[in-house]
Amino acid sequence: MQVAKTHRVAGGELSYAAHESAATGTQMRLSVFTPGGNGPFPYLIWLSGLTCTEDNFTTKAGAYAAAAKHGVAIVAPDTSPRGESVADDVAYDLGQGASFYIDATQPPWAPHFKMETYVVRDLIEAVEARFPLAPRRSIFGHSMGGHGALTLAMKHPRLFRSVSAFSPISSPTRCPWGEKAFSAYLGADRDAWRAHDAALLIEAGKAAPFDDILIDQGLADSFLVNELKPEVLEAAALAAGQKLTLRRQEGYDHSYFFIATFVSEHVAFHAARLA
Amino acid sequence: MQVAKTHRVAGGELSYAAHESAATGTQMRLSVFTPGGNGPFPYLIWLSGLTCTEDNFTTKAGAYAAAAKHGVAIVAPDTSPRGESVADDVAYDLGQGASFYIDATQPPWAPHFKMETYVVRDLIEAVEARFPLAPRRSIFGHSMGGHGALTLAMKHPRLFRSVSAFSPISSPTRCPWGEKAFSAYLGADRDAWRAHDAALLIEAGKAAPFDDILIDQGLADSFLVNELKPEVLEAAALAAGQKLTLRRQEGYDHSYFFIATFVSEHVAFHAARLA
Repeated sequence: MQVAKTHRVAGGELSYAAHESAATGTQMRLSVFTPGGNGPFPYLIWLSGLTCTEDNFTTKAGAYAAAAKHGVAIVAPDTSPRGESVADDVAYDLGQGASFYIDATQPPWAPHFKMETYVVRDLIEAVEARFPLAPRRSIFGHSMGGHGALTLAMKHPRLFRSVSAFSPISSPTRCPWGEKAFSAYLGADRDAWRAHDAALLIEAGKAAPFDDILIDQGLADSFLVNELKPEVLEAAALAAGQKLTLRRQEGYDHSYFFIATFVSEHVAFHAARLA
Repeated sequence: MQVAKTHRVAGGELSYAAHESAATGTQMRLSVFTPGGNGPFPYLIWLSGLTCTEDNFTTKAGAYAAAAKHGVAIVAPDTSPRGESVADDVAYDLGQGASFYIDATQPPWAPHFKMETYVVRDLIEAVEARFPLAPRRSIFGHSMGGHGALTLAMKHPRLFRSVSAFSPISSPTRCPWGEKAFSAYLGADRDAWRAHDAALLIEAGKAAPFDDILIDQGLADSFLVNELKPEVLEAAALAAGQKLTLRRQEGYDHSYFFIATFVSEHVAFHAARLA
């Protein structure tokens, strides 16, 4: 793990770093905020959305004052493997910047697009070895990263104490973004998709339970109806007895202005469960 | 004034807008945040630093929660006139994005680089006509914009109730950035420069008094020694009896991470004086 640069912020330290991942076979970039003090700190993993890097959350979310207040660290990895040897697509919603946090099985994606294994194994191992982090984690994210946070938490509950999301892709097997990405990364057999769909995992009884799942969704979000569909997740959770707090926020869109408005409440939600 | 887009943030509304300025002879871009409620709201004008646009403060400063809490609006204009017909330079510290908030007198800059008149006349008139703003204003800024905030407040005290700055260029006639810009915009006669130097204005008794001037300066700022020189401003204020609260912040650099850490305190400083 090499730290490229650091910034002091909110009384703590933000590091931009990179490390070699066995899962992706590439160098992966990430950012790590640690609050003031010595730690070890419990931490949140933030998964960003389409087109983002390890940098969007750091500069736009305004989350570090809340993290410092609660004494939690925040780790934000890049959204995919990158590089000239890594497959890509001209579209913004496929390839580099658009991993969907799954392990691809299909060419040309399979060699490097192993972001589920990257997050749950390589990222956690690397940041806990290098930074003053306690092995107490929660996970949250936005849009594609909200889908990633929900599904990784539901599949790997021993790794995460809690999960929340902003504007998540709630059921990727039932929206254009997800159908396009899963077709490419997982192939035409839709049965292989089911393990990576938060709503379907709950419907099938395969999602690990959490005491609550916090979701914020802006009602002026242009992707709400066709791509995000939180009502599908809400119905699945209701039927399965999974408590889910879905807050429909009047007037908010899909941008980081929405995230910045409510991120401190998400940090507090997780901090209470990491204490 | 045409509003190009709006985002809901922190319970209020952020507008990106543009209007024709008689001073610059160009269309000028700006952002305006108004808190929730009906107004009219007192407001802060934020002046950004070199290379910035009307957009950096909006996305990176994380100031709107504090502004909403105190019921103040924030107006952030672009840092210069722009366009193909506007003079420019390949350097980042001259031309478009680098106005220094003065009225240029020299070719090729004089036709459009009239940012002092733009801010104190056209901007104020335009935003107060279009948005629910009360004619109670304060001004703050960062780096080149900190210089702009200080000098415009000192020269136009009836327009501004208070002034603060992050990492300001404290005495542009005595640092490379300022000497380069003033030479280009104002010509070789250094006497013409003196009216646009915060420290010199105080030294000459030409700066309007304020009950306090708040300045935050990071001690890990790579521009501190050669460009910013807050000690020059501090000495001038001390000699003149102008109260100046200069907070030297250990470990902080010149970035928006520094601004984001302390911006809520600046908003509170101004809100108390706008009440």
